[in-house]
Amino acid sequence: MPEPDLAELTAASLERIRSRTPLIHNITNYVVMNDTANVLLAAGASPVMAHAPQEVREMVSFAGALVLNIGTLEDAWIESMLIAGREANARGVPIVLDPVGVGATRLRTETTERLLSELKIAVVRGNAGELASIAGLGGEVRGVDSVRADSPEESARAVSRRTGGAAVASGVVDYVSAGNRGARIQNGHALMGRITGSGCMATAMVGAFLAVEEDPFLAASEAMIAFGVAGEIAAARSEGPGTFRSNLLDAVASLDSAALGRLARYDVFARQPA
Amino acid sequence: MPEPDLAELTAASLERIRSRTPLIHNITNYVVMNDTANVLLAAGASPVMAHAPQEVREMVSFAGALVLNIGTLEDAWIESMLIAGREANARGVPIVLDPVGVGATRLRTETTERLLSELKIAVVRGNAGELASIAGLGGEVRGVDSVRADSPEESARAVSRRTGGAAVASGVVDYVSAGNRGARIQNGHALMGRITGSGCMATAMVGAFLAVEEDPFLAASEAMIAFGVAGEIAAARSEGPGTFRSNLLDAVASLDSAALGRLARYDVFARQPA
Amino acid sequence: MPEPDLAELTAASLERIRSRTPLIHNITNYVVMNDTANVLLAAGASPVMAHAPQEVREMVSFAGALVLNIGTLEDAWIESMLIAGREANARGVPIVLDPVGVGATRLRTETTERLLSELKIAVVRGNAGELASIAGLGGEVRGVDSVRADSPEESARAVSRRTGGAAVASGVVDYVSAGNRGARIQNGHALMGRITGSGCMATAMVGAFLAVEEDPFLAASEAMIAFGVAGEIAAARSEGPGTFRSNLLDAVASLDSAALGRLARYDVFARQPA
Repeated sequence: MPEPDLAELTAASLERIRSRTPLIHNITNYVVMNDTANVLLAAGASPVMAHAPQEVREMVSFAGALVLNIGTLEDAWIESMLIAGREANARGVPIVLDPVGVGATRLRTETTERLLSELKIAVVRGNAGELASIAGLGGEVRGVDSVRADSPEESARAVSRRTGGAAVASGVVDYVSAGNRGARIQNGHALMGRITGSGCMATAMVGAFLAVEEDPFLAASEAMIAFGVAGEIAAARSEGPGTFRSNLLDAVASLDSAALGRLARYDVFARQPA
Repeated sequence: MPEPDLAELTAASLERIRSRTPLIHNITNYVVMNDTANVLLAAGASPVMAHAPQEVREMVSFAGALVLNIGTLEDAWIESMLIAGREANARGVPIVLDPVGVGATRLRTETTERLLSELKIAVVRGNAGELASIAGLGGEVRGVDSVRADSPEESARAVSRRTGGAAVASGVVDYVSAGNRGARIQNGHALMGRITGSGCMATAMVGAFLAVEEDPFLAASEAMIAFGVAGEIAAARSEGPGTFRSNLLDAVASLDSAALGRLARYDVFARQPA
Repeated sequence: MPEPDLAELTAASLERIRSRTPLIHNITNYVVMNDTANVLLAAGASPVMAHAPQEVREMVSFAGALVLNIGTLEDAWIESMLIAGREANARGVPIVLDPVGVGATRLRTETTERLLSELKIAVVRGNAGELASIAGLGGEVRGVDSVRADSPEESARAVSRRTGGAAVASGVVDYVSAGNRGARIQNGHALMGRITGSGCMATAMVGAFLAVEEDPFLAASEAMIAFGVAGEIAAARSEGPGTFRSNLLDAVASLDSAALGRLARYDVFARQPA
């Protein structure tokens, strides 16, 4: 099997997002709701935030993907995530989970466990510490930041084995894993770590790509490439994190196949079964 | 009756907002709280967000207008909207309602019905699909976006007949209706649809104008002109949706009668009673 | 005792924030969560927002400071503030309180009283009306804005006497008081009042400085200087409140001892005991 041209696939998926404007249903944290809605709009998708238990089943039934993000939890929100998630599973709407801060508190760890046990998750995206924590590989998470994670690639692989879907451990290098396949993506910029919600925005981007790309491994890889390349373009125009936030949305909105072809940096490989 | 000079009236109302800094009480959705607070500050008003049932009566008693927005509903918030709304009605504080996503889920439809039944609403502002949904004219709303609405002008008229106040169906053209009067406003820019909360910000602007202009038809028309003209000014300086968001606040803050006179594009007409 | 060189101390504390990246636990309002997270990241700290009663004790146990902000209250959040605050007190984690809108509604006044009675607060930071309201000096707060406060310096002193910590009454001049010591800081720019959350961001900055500076008087003074100087630098590059928001984060991120030395404007004095 030849190595897929991820830059080309990313551009093609982005075109489909722009022409189909898939509805992306987000049950996410308060801090990043605005940013994730804006990045989804910039990418060409149609975001909706809805968390009331009475309406999430209806809302997700129209959606191209469901984004679950545990950044600011409350009991009622966890119930809504489960209601929406079950409906999504029943209807074949793919789910991406962002386990923000898993490992930092029992509530976050138990909620992540529950969501992974009760729902079929197409993609889990977190930082290396979060993925290591889920994988039981001794990651350390302080607040919502990864402070120690020795084996991000192995963590992503372990999480993907558990869910049967894809997993992304992001960082300076993003490791994407699904079954025997793996990708290492080297796009992105240090300024992404200096604004809040860049990880959550990446997760929302995975949601948009899942709505137009059936293969979770490709959807996750393409989203990380698209967002990383946009980050590089934006950083080149920015004076600091504030102007970077604005430029990042501009860069996502104007991202095209030429820029992707020029800037995408990745390796894809079929790994031997462990 | 000569046609009112809406550009001039808009400039005069804006001056009153800036000199009086009316308190605008918002019970709104999580996604746009920050954006609506910022656009109100840019316009010269004084925004406050408060939703606890114990305090909304007190808070609205000092307000020049009450903004109700159902973008991210919960039961407790609906109760607070009703408590605040009744107090506003009792005190003559005008209310503007943004029925975000009405028609998309039963919760949103029923909540909108309840607010319209129990409260006197000075202005309803939504997209064409939302207004058509309230009017029973077969609008289609997917998530929070209008996907089909054949008769925005008729929808606005029907909603205004129902409430006895004004109604705005916004889109490429904004249709404002109140009793026999109507306005078509052609300001605005496509980038406004590429950022989250531009509709909600327009609604907040209506709140600010309602605080200084007693006639809901004029307040709604002026707010849509002011926000639309600011959008055009901002778009001319922007590279994409991210820089547009920043420039939009700058443009609202520096909007003056010269720019309004030059850029406002509208028709006002007295319609025959149906 | 020679007058401390606050500009130099500010630069030194900022260096410690950047090298230690202290976790700052925020239980804050919906409007400003994103802005406060971003200003903390820009300063070099690591923000986390967590409010579930089940997790706040755990979360605060890793924190360098706890930020409590009552901008959008609900009963459950008040309980979480108390749980987190008691744990912070037990562990010696300093607390900064932003009593947003105290005096405007009974809920805000009673909640502020309760937090001040049950918790040891290292720094209270509010506008002059809020501080006067706590001090019982007849401040007037409408919504979240100070509309009348005749004696900000006296208010800060009275609040500091009550808490035994430091208090900041901010405005065109920021008055910092703690015991016999006082500071008047003249940094800042009018545009800071034209964006939402600038006060809340200042409070978050106090949290970051408290994490690396044991003396609450110095931490509060340094944070107000740092944020005020950043505001001046940002304003010089901005066209209005929208571009100012972006430039403010850039300015915080690039703030250095040279700029602080050049721009810091303050008086420090040891006051006679009253």
